[in-house]
Amino acid sequence: MASNCFGNIFRITTWGESHGKAIGVVIDGCPAGVAITDDDINADLALRSPGKSPFTSPRQETDHGEILSGVFNGLTTGTPISIIIWNRDADSSKYEAIKDLLRPGHASFTYLKKYGAFDYRGGGRASARETAGRVAAGAVAKKFLAHFNIRIAAYVQRIAGVEASPPAVDLKSLREATYKSEVFCPDPAAAAAMAAELTKIMDRGDSVGGVVEAVVEGLPAGLGDPVYEKLSGNISRAMMSIPATRGIEIGSGFAVADLNGSTNNDVFYMDGDVIRTKTNYAGGVLGGMSTGMPLVFKVAFKPASSIKIPLDTIDTKGNKQTFNLPAGSRHDPCVAIRAVTVVEAMTAITLADSILMNRSAQA
Amino acid sequence: MASNCFGNIFRITTWGESHGKAIGVVIDGCPAGVAITDDDINADLALRSPGKSPFTSPRQETDHGEILSGVFNGLTTGTPISIIIWNRDADSSKYEAIKDLLRPGHASFTYLKKYGAFDYRGGGRASARETAGRVAAGAVAKKFLAHFNIRIAAYVQRIAGVEASPPAVDLKSLREATYKSEVFCPDPAAAAAMAAELTKIMDRGDSVGGVVEAVVEGLPAGLGDPVYEKLSGNISRAMMSIPATRGIEIGSGFAVADLNGSTNNDVFYMDGDVIRTKTNYAGGVLGGMSTGMPLVFKVAFKPASSIKIPLDTIDTKGNKQTFNLPAGSRHDPCVAIRAVTVVEAMTAITLADSILMNRSAQA
Amino acid sequence: MASNCFGNIFRITTWGESHGKAIGVVIDGCPAGVAITDDDINADLALRSPGKSPFTSPRQETDHGEILSGVFNGLTTGTPISIIIWNRDADSSKYEAIKDLLRPGHASFTYLKKYGAFDYRGGGRASARETAGRVAAGAVAKKFLAHFNIRIAAYVQRIAGVEASPPAVDLKSLREATYKSEVFCPDPAAAAAMAAELTKIMDRGDSVGGVVEAVVEGLPAGLGDPVYEKLSGNISRAMMSIPATRGIEIGSGFAVADLNGSTNNDVFYMDGDVIRTKTNYAGGVLGGMSTGMPLVFKVAFKPASSIKIPLDTIDTKGNKQTFNLPAGSRHDPCVAIRAVTVVEAMTAITLADSILMNRSAQA
Amino acid sequence: MASNCFGNIFRITTWGESHGKAIGVVIDGCPAGVAITDDDINADLALRSPGKSPFTSPRQETDHGEILSGVFNGLTTGTPISIIIWNRDADSSKYEAIKDLLRPGHASFTYLKKYGAFDYRGGGRASARETAGRVAAGAVAKKFLAHFNIRIAAYVQRIAGVEASPPAVDLKSLREATYKSEVFCPDPAAAAAMAAELTKIMDRGDSVGGVVEAVVEGLPAGLGDPVYEKLSGNISRAMMSIPATRGIEIGSGFAVADLNGSTNNDVFYMDGDVIRTKTNYAGGVLGGMSTGMPLVFKVAFKPASSIKIPLDTIDTKGNKQTFNLPAGSRHDPCVAIRAVTVVEAMTAITLADSILMNRSAQA
Repeated sequence: MASNCFGNIFRITTWGESHGKAIGVVIDGCPAGVAITDDDINADLALRSPGKSPFTSPRQETDHGEILSGVFNGLTTGTPISIIIWNRDADSSKYEAIKDLLRPGHASFTYLKKYGAFDYRGGGRASARETAGRVAAGAVAKKFLAHFNIRIAAYVQRIAGVEASPPAVDLKSLREATYKSEVFCPDPAAAAAMAAELTKIMDRGDSVGGVVEAVVEGLPAGLGDPVYEKLSGNISRAMMSIPATRGIEIGSGFAVADLNGSTNNDVFYMDGDVIRTKTNYAGGVLGGMSTGMPLVFKVAFKPASSIKIPLDTIDTKGNKQTFNLPAGSRHDPCVAIRAVTVVEAMTAITLADSILMNRSAQA
Repeated sequence: MASNCFGNIFRITTWGESHGKAIGVVIDGCPAGVAITDDDINADLALRSPGKSPFTSPRQETDHGEILSGVFNGLTTGTPISIIIWNRDADSSKYEAIKDLLRPGHASFTYLKKYGAFDYRGGGRASARETAGRVAAGAVAKKFLAHFNIRIAAYVQRIAGVEASPPAVDLKSLREATYKSEVFCPDPAAAAAMAAELTKIMDRGDSVGGVVEAVVEGLPAGLGDPVYEKLSGNISRAMMSIPATRGIEIGSGFAVADLNGSTNNDVFYMDGDVIRTKTNYAGGVLGGMSTGMPLVFKVAFKPASSIKIPLDTIDTKGNKQTFNLPAGSRHDPCVAIRAVTVVEAMTAITLADSILMNRSAQA
Repeated sequence: MASNCFGNIFRITTWGESHGKAIGVVIDGCPAGVAITDDDINADLALRSPGKSPFTSPRQETDHGEILSGVFNGLTTGTPISIIIWNRDADSSKYEAIKDLLRPGHASFTYLKKYGAFDYRGGGRASARETAGRVAAGAVAKKFLAHFNIRIAAYVQRIAGVEASPPAVDLKSLREATYKSEVFCPDPAAAAAMAAELTKIMDRGDSVGGVVEAVVEGLPAGLGDPVYEKLSGNISRAMMSIPATRGIEIGSGFAVADLNGSTNNDVFYMDGDVIRTKTNYAGGVLGGMSTGMPLVFKVAFKPASSIKIPLDTIDTKGNKQTFNLPAGSRHDPCVAIRAVTVVEAMTAITLADSILMNRSAQA
Repeated sequence: MASNCFGNIFRITTWGESHGKAIGVVIDGCPAGVAITDDDINADLALRSPGKSPFTSPRQETDHGEILSGVFNGLTTGTPISIIIWNRDADSSKYEAIKDLLRPGHASFTYLKKYGAFDYRGGGRASARETAGRVAAGAVAKKFLAHFNIRIAAYVQRIAGVEASPPAVDLKSLREATYKSEVFCPDPAAAAAMAAELTKIMDRGDSVGGVVEAVVEGLPAGLGDPVYEKLSGNISRAMMSIPATRGIEIGSGFAVADLNGSTNNDVFYMDGDVIRTKTNYAGGVLGGMSTGMPLVFKVAFKPASSIKIPLDTIDTKGNKQTFNLPAGSRHDPCVAIRAVTVVEAMTAITLADSILMNRSAQA
């Protein structure tokens, strides 16, 4: 089944395995006239790049995205934009030892069941490396969104019981604070507490989950379609397509179970010429369409399955075995950190698509 | 934008407004050879039907679904199955008074912004009535899933601070207990406490949110596609398309933020001839594909926006107004209750699609 | 497989069998703000209605389309437009005699092979009756196209060796002349010759094929997308989805095999402020996109398979049999005649979709 | 609009411009377990490669396709197969002289109208070079079709008034004869006559159109879906997406206009255990689904727009100009020749998709 594409009009198709020759993305449906360069893409790729922080895995390569088509004289032409990122630092030999083991918490078992085979080298297609293609495409989407002054920021909101209170600053400053932090958390006190917890978790070879929050400002009201192409639904679909995601909340989220309508109903008022709501329990979406208030949502990421603690398992023949992470394997103690950039990218892609879909709303 | 359809191969298109002539669904892509009758559909429609409980709105009509095409000699033929449900109890006159008001917490504002107009009668297309089409389609999907012995149950897991502990029984018994309860909760003690809270909330004209949990058993391993058509992703998309949803969690959900990989990694073992995991933090999905363990997820529903408490608002010209629910309007204090059947239906539709998609996995 | 829908943004899903309860169409993606009434739809349905001509089958029912959703206060709302047409004159008993026979030239065999069963009553889903849903949807599409002053006309261009030379009049007059003719041919001399041939063919119980030509004026340049969503490609796809089609030609068509580039290359010039070409061998499409010159194409329809001449065949068990058309069966000597309205409708639907797709071409 | 992909389940996305860095294709939805190597792809790419014949353009590069993903241990894995073909022989400087001219018969004008800009270098995305990606994907599709013993052959059937009578041999021999011919025509006498005509046409700097016929054997009955995903419809869509196509005929094609049903209705009989028809006017398709008889169709290709004869035109400012093909430009006198391989490839892709779609026909 064709299942590696996302989007209706602005549509991306990612391809590639962790230890194949290259990975990449084709963006089909980006409008003509968007200024984009390799540098724009590489700036975003650098944000998620391994090796930036003590808490992200040490794969020593600089991801370099190269635009192969769809751009002429610095502008998109309306034809597909193909971006390639070569795999350089990929030593597959160490995976031979585990090729017949079911990795606990990992997709090797389900790939095997579905396809009858599995590319065990570095996680194959299930590797988070696939998300580099999304980040590259997200860079293009962001350039398009900039035409409408739509801004996106995401950051780590919770790790290991430590919850952040992001400073009340504009999104640009928030984003800068995020990417300065080694745990991608703009609240310095929380960031320090998270780092302390992460150090302990790393020291014992374990991993931990985390929550990423995203905020979007500058959206016009009416983006998203009712019913099956809701903005909230497509954001959810986008987020839940990112590896390791376990949940999404829009606005008041699961807390709504204990909220009353008299509180949760955001009251409308005129703010000058603009219709706004006094509160934003809705997280910027009513009936699946944007209200013009900030779009706010949270995404839960499970702990990375790759840990340095041996675990019981079986091999493909059903024999009991012990799973040990191959020596020298990459090990991210908390994938939520690097996921911040991926959340931004998938948000940008979803919104670019929504803007284009919206052009057909009225005759 | 064509945004009223869901599914890749088993694809539904719902249509209709709350106060139009009828509502309905077309199922395109149901395989030939599934036994289905109007009675099967009406049995499921009856479950969500208004008037079953003191806590659901008093719309006095019996939804009756009628199959118009796609079935011959009691079996699906492979051609589209069109199901119609006529609207009978639809008095629109009372909505005239509020037709120019922005309803707090309601989609009238965003519809207006998107389409330039809004069918204000009973919520129009944004009414939960649209979900009857989903339930009808879900009845067909369930008949197909029965070929593979796949069972689905959903129930209210939390309302107004009261959390249920469902009894450890088989899914069939769990489902029966659910639909016997007036709050669709199979834990009798929790159900009583929820009912007590709901009575208080209704008495003051307010509403409350709730959480629905769903469990699926009998899934083969390998359902769902990696990357953008993950089973978890498509379940999320399905759930977040239901009106009033604010969040979804798969397996350990948002709790993962504080969990370690050494716990969250479900360990594989042989249970006779079957590969299983000792725990099921994954909620039955790894890498977006089913593991064969139960699929478990929760969906958060916000409090209904329609409450009997007046709220500040503005009209379409920006004048300050007070919004009062029209006398005689339906008023569900907790939409999560009736959503239980819709969650089951959308789960069935998503799984039917996944099974068909899976047929292309191997040459 | 979901295969009963057509279009990317303006998307129709047709449903229904010849002898089921009803047939219909759901239009998903029609923009808000298009004025449409049941009368508009029924005016177009009347054009293709049986019984208008001695050369179309005598099914004595007036197709009546009824809009069930998606229209409020006379305007489309952006939500799905469901249109239903009830089947009234459907006596299925006469088909019992042939239910186990493979009908030569008919889809009963291929349906059986694909789905394992076949609704043999009146052709089931394979009946040309399915096209009524297309005509209803086409009526909506035409109302949208009228916003842009795009006009469509189709007519019978060839039947049984008689070729028409349509008069050089405006499209509105051409269309009127077409629908006044009993063979839907605007060239009176050719129409008379066709009628004479058809009378002879009918008298011997036989059928004949035909060619329908279509012309569209008022298209802006640039409609259609390069590569796989070419305007020419989507028109071809639309036409080849109509029952009984065997070929399509755009512009100079198959004659290109003997043409030279120096002739076939339409030369550009300025006609006042407008860029035009001196000739129109391209039929209004270059690189898959409209040039602004008239879109011109021809569609070949095979002779109806239902004839009153006995034919050798086999039954589903492989025994030799003779196929006789059941007494009282409808019998169109030339389906190309009634196909004229269907060609117009599918053209309108394709163009409505192209206009909406085009809105995403530039940032 | 995302318009560079083709197929429902087996879906290709092509990308790249004639004078960009590279071109390529991503195949999403190829089942796991198909053996494929770079050599398989390059064997097919070599067939269409420029320079094989005096009648194809002299671009002196060997197209080399390289698989970047989706294949492991020689077998497809179910993940996307990305294939890249670098552009090597691309001198863009000569196109500067014509960058503001509307090329008669060429897509520069329509691209400009649609996107506001045009990559004028060598035809940009409108170049036939895009079809190399299709041929590469077709090579993969053919390997999958070989699992079912489905064979495809295409050949030049008509050029410049010369019509071929292909020898009555098996498809493998027919295909070999085709690719031995310098005009890709397996009828030696016709090939010689075509070559003589082509020499004259080339000598005067002109071009000519042509017709390609394709035959497929080994299809099971029941492939293709009724209504909008007919096998005939999808083959038409596939063919009409190839650059320069102007028409398609299935089976008896446009000749049906003069045929009677009593002839055109192919009569069923038992050939041993197999149901066959005595004639094959249907071209192997009834009701849009394969009959098991050979699939036969013809495709018309217009003369290449690039000719060495000066033509009147205008520039983008509307000034009268003369268009001269830049010195050293490639010039194919008859694009139908090289199109043979592309017709084969698009046929294979369409059939691979149909086989996968068909797996959902029955429960």
